[in-house]
Amino acid sequence: MIADTRTNAGVDNISSYKKLHVTEIAGDRVISIATAGNLSVTQTALAMVAEGIKMPGHDDIETLANVPSMFRAAQLVGHAMQQVRKEIAPSLEADSLKVSASMLLGGQIKGGKMSLYLIYAQGNFIECSSDTPYLQIGELKYGKPILDRALRPDTPMGEAVKLGLISFDSTIRSNIAVGPPFDMIVIARDSLHGEQRRIEADDPYFKDLGRRWSEALANAHRAMPPPPWLEPEADARPNIAVAS
Amino acid sequence: MIADTRTNAGVDNISSYKKLHVTEIAGDRVISIATAGNLSVTQTALAMVAEGIKMPGHDDIETLANVPSMFRAAQLVGHAMQQVRKEIAPSLEADSLKVSASMLLGGQIKGGKMSLYLIYAQGNFIECSSDTPYLQIGELKYGKPILDRALRPDTPMGEAVKLGLISFDSTIRSNIAVGPPFDMIVIARDSLHGEQRRIEADDPYFKDLGRRWSEALANAHRAMPPPPWLEPEADARPNIAVAS
Repeated sequence: MIADTRTNAGVDNISSYKKLHVTEIAGDRVISIATAGNLSVTQTALAMVAEGIKMPGHDDIETLANVPSMFRAAQLVGHAMQQVRKEIAPSLEADSLKVSASMLLGGQIKGGKMSLYLIYAQGNFIECSSDTPYLQIGELKYGKPILDRALRPDTPMGEAVKLGLISFDSTIRSNIAVGPPFDMIVIARDSLHGEQRRIEADDPYFKDLGRRWSEALANAHRAMPPPPWLEPEADARPNIAVAS
Repeated sequence: MIADTRTNAGVDNISSYKKLHVTEIAGDRVISIATAGNLSVTQTALAMVAEGIKMPGHDDIETLANVPSMFRAAQLVGHAMQQVRKEIAPSLEADSLKVSASMLLGGQIKGGKMSLYLIYAQGNFIECSSDTPYLQIGELKYGKPILDRALRPDTPMGEAVKLGLISFDSTIRSNIAVGPPFDMIVIARDSLHGEQRRIEADDPYFKDLGRRWSEALANAHRAMPPPPWLEPEADARPNIAVAS
């Protein structure tokens, strides 16, 4: 799971906030949450979950540290998102402010399987499946093509991390509202532990990856044959227009 | 200029319409228009332009066949878009229907320079410059990263056509609302003539390009070093989560 840290209230008000939140109890569970959208909605929802939630029809107060399953964790966070949104949506919408927010929740609890969920602001959620072996939230379109083309259910972990970082590199080149540092957690199945890492803007590996990727793409399209129906005109300098 | 032909009123109502419209008078002018967004808005606006428009403060009826400059052509089309939108927006918006629409207008008129404009539904427009040597309308994000990384003001025409088609290939893989056949026009400077071509779904060059591109990307990311901080785990099968 990779999250950037940039948040903005307009291009003249850009700040850095951690959007990756990890609950880990050694040998018992590791649950990681990434957030996108309205920061006040996601922060408040996570604070509610941290304080503990009494779900309708249940007597116990539940948190991510004691939920019995990943599915239950998703329900808990979804419930919190729904409550927060219900409370603040009317006043935000009255000022034409966005209340959109979403979260990714992934990890494993002892005795259960590795799971990854996408939780919507309305509190409902979907689970990642092997047909499309990734989930994205937030500014997702720029970074999606590389994942669609290259990520497979059997892609090894190292490759998947590379692809995730390349996907982010594509996004930050096209949208200044997304930017480093990135927070990353890698969770190996049944380890019940996450390797966390912060990747700064000047991280040598990330910088090298972006440079190599641009070079590789340039070499790739140069190596392809030109359209056979087009007369070669070495010195033509086009503008190009794309309508879809 | 490349345009797809797919239009939809929901995923259960998908049809094919030409969205690339060319006005060519041999030796005098070639003007190409691509449209995106609400088809009733763009079709009506183009029909108004074809019938001729008397702009405020002018006595003559103008069409794309007699405007004196590309700038004037953009004004004419912008004026028509503005009028159509003014007339139909209230009734469409009353039914929560989108009135968003935009057009690309490019080409050359004898004595003038090659120009490319993006015209908004409100009638205002911007001109393409060498800082960002392309313009996009419609579903633009999926196909933007490859253009951002690879297209330069001095990219030769054949390369630019390849990049435009690769950009479209990325978009159609991620959004079923965009699809072939594609219409394409290539206009060489001072030729005052456009080479038009329709690219069908089974076009051998286009299919080969998509296949080669996916292979080249796969080879490129496999050739890159794995993250140095990650322990190699050949058999790990990750889900990946991306939040931006």
